[in-house]
Amino acid sequence: MSLTVMKFGGSSVGTTERMGRVAQRIVDKKLQGDRVVVVVSAMGDTTDDLIDKANEINANPPAREMDMLLTTGEQISVALLSMAIHKLGHDAKSYTGWQAGIVTEPTHGRAKIGDISPERILSSLDEGNIVIVAGFQGMTEAGEITTLGRGGSDTTAVALAAALKADVCEIYTDVDGIYSTDPRVVKCARKLNEISYDEMLELAHLGAAVLHPRAVEYAKHYKVNLVVRSSFTNNAGTLVREEAQMEQGIVVRGIASDKNVARISVLGVEDEPGVLATMFGALAEHGIDVDIIVQSGVQGGKADFSFTVSMNDRAKALDVLAGLKPKVPYLETTYEEGLVKVSIVGAGMVSNPGVAARMFEAISSVGVSIKMVSTSEIKVSCVIAAEPLQEVVRALHTAYGLDTADTAFVGGPSERR
Amino acid sequence: MSLTVMKFGGSSVGTTERMGRVAQRIVDKKLQGDRVVVVVSAMGDTTDDLIDKANEINANPPAREMDMLLTTGEQISVALLSMAIHKLGHDAKSYTGWQAGIVTEPTHGRAKIGDISPERILSSLDEGNIVIVAGFQGMTEAGEITTLGRGGSDTTAVALAAALKADVCEIYTDVDGIYSTDPRVVKCARKLNEISYDEMLELAHLGAAVLHPRAVEYAKHYKVNLVVRSSFTNNAGTLVREEAQMEQGIVVRGIASDKNVARISVLGVEDEPGVLATMFGALAEHGIDVDIIVQSGVQGGKADFSFTVSMNDRAKALDVLAGLKPKVPYLETTYEEGLVKVSIVGAGMVSNPGVAARMFEAISSVGVSIKMVSTSEIKVSCVIAAEPLQEVVRALHTAYGLDTADTAFVGGPSERR
Repeated sequence: MSLTVMKFGGSSVGTTERMGRVAQRIVDKKLQGDRVVVVVSAMGDTTDDLIDKANEINANPPAREMDMLLTTGEQISVALLSMAIHKLGHDAKSYTGWQAGIVTEPTHGRAKIGDISPERILSSLDEGNIVIVAGFQGMTEAGEITTLGRGGSDTTAVALAAALKADVCEIYTDVDGIYSTDPRVVKCARKLNEISYDEMLELAHLGAAVLHPRAVEYAKHYKVNLVVRSSFTNNAGTLVREEAQMEQGIVVRGIASDKNVARISVLGVEDEPGVLATMFGALAEHGIDVDIIVQSGVQGGKADFSFTVSMNDRAKALDVLAGLKPKVPYLETTYEEGLVKVSIVGAGMVSNPGVAARMFEAISSVGVSIKMVSTSEIKVSCVIAAEPLQEVVRALHTAYGLDTADTAFVGGPSERR
Repeated sequence: MSLTVMKFGGSSVGTTERMGRVAQRIVDKKLQGDRVVVVVSAMGDTTDDLIDKANEINANPPAREMDMLLTTGEQISVALLSMAIHKLGHDAKSYTGWQAGIVTEPTHGRAKIGDISPERILSSLDEGNIVIVAGFQGMTEAGEITTLGRGGSDTTAVALAAALKADVCEIYTDVDGIYSTDPRVVKCARKLNEISYDEMLELAHLGAAVLHPRAVEYAKHYKVNLVVRSSFTNNAGTLVREEAQMEQGIVVRGIASDKNVARISVLGVEDEPGVLATMFGALAEHGIDVDIIVQSGVQGGKADFSFTVSMNDRAKALDVLAGLKPKVPYLETTYEEGLVKVSIVGAGMVSNPGVAARMFEAISSVGVSIKMVSTSEIKVSCVIAAEPLQEVVRALHTAYGLDTADTAFVGGPSERR
């Protein structure tokens, strides 16, 4: 008998009526003969309402007490969901994070899961129960209640699936899978049947809302088969696993774009050892996340650097550089705002020459010039002007054969595990 | 340094603004040099809202899941109250029932506290914290979350006070103490300075809303000094303890009245051994609570019985009696509805002859006839017609010298512990 972990987000259980539909879905799974563990987030706006209440009382509440407060949201969800399953005539038991044996490091607000003792969950399954576990929360060894931070319920689900050696961890959400690119941008974007952990991490911007990168890292580490699928339809969803099968003739899995990129150039930097380390060390110290770094050739003992940061960090980054001038002499800084990073991702590109060249061609075919390039084994990123982004993404989508209908696989991931 | 347990009910923390006032009150106590443990109920309507939500999903939810659901109400309260205290610049830590070491029997919805392991609370106090504990909840030895049923937060406070060997357990509520009778009935009803556990139990109807009988029993068993006082004023309140000091010349502490009483008479019962046992055994089996029982003299081998039940149970009791007729022959049953039981309570009456006679005089002085009488060491109850109840209670209040101003004690209970 297989064991499935199902995770439902806050919008899937946002109303008591939706809660009932989710309960039916869980019962259907159980009736297929599966042992079922369910992880749930807080209902709809519950967490925001609790945060508002806290702020009314104390604008700067202690993190420990925020965790005490916010964990009630998931506890309410699991209790109500269990009641909804009982209403359908099936046995269910709800558990808080600490009851489910989820032990975290002693940090509040963003604790990492250290260990899971799954004995209680396993014996509850043995009793024939559908087990419902509160997402996003755990307990320290000293018995303090903690939360896991953003994407916490995804991480709970994946960590439980790993500890329980589940056959699959299904993440139910309001979209029906991971797409080859944003369907709001490219109409013929298509749902991927499979994707590898590494590709998924690179494509974070396509999936961030449905699947938190931390949960993907956890899944990769413990080799948990993840499925992203819709809570509202029965469509098959996308399977995220170690080695995703590539479809015939497809080397690029998906296309991501990241708006609000600023490029900063530092010109005429003295070409001495340690200069780069000093410069980027200072930026890191100020919490500035630097993405692509490009160094042009050295001329007359002076070099030019360019790097990208998010628009929000642009002014701060220029301040930091200004402060560095006495220590790291340079001629001047320039910057350009409102750029976009567009990336193609696919594990197959490492063995396919000419993938990057095809990208440059596609971008230039719509009259856009490339400002920066960065590559990894499974990704090529280009920084370009923000407009016309839609045309660029569409051209890339076509260039890599992603527009054609999905015929390589007949069944969805659920048939294949 | 003394240790005080303070308990605040749901209406005292019903809004974030009230929560702030309660926090100030707690801080004031702490600044007096006291070590302070606070027990809080769920805010205002939180519990009712949660029950409504559960009923929307399942009209007959499992008791285990109701406990999972309802305990979030107190967890929200303790977290917010702790934040409010931090806002005032003092250290506080909140704890759920299980974190506070409150172990209950394995029953849901109305578990009794079995044991308290106060180590964690004590070491938190040693760290200098104000300790905030969620009322109404505990955990079984197997780690299941339980609730204590009605009056649960009072019981949590008293049980914690006993386990921590607190000097006093203060129950804060929306009235400023226990009154000699219902102030809505008798204008000159006055607040009692002291009352004994036994008197308090007999006067349950005067204090049920502010102090649950179970908490009083617990306090009596562990000899916990209880104070009932207002969360909105600084008045001294009422001290409930083992031996309450009687004021000069006062033998009756208070007057309670219980409406909705029905009297049932069984006439011409065969006077055989075991007849009473059969009759009242059958009523008990059907869950009918019989209060006063009176047997008139036996004439010609036949006896008449009268007993009182609540109006709700009247029809059911008559049905049970009709079913008994073949087994316990009797002539007929009669009943009278809409009666009232009025009681005088005072530990001093056992050593004061004529207390009952004065009651009968006072009742007859307003032209009311007495239908039944029942006495115990500290109580005399009379069943009378429902009208004019106010005049009867006023006459009794005057007859026992309760109208005079309270002069026997100058200070309130807080000065005396």
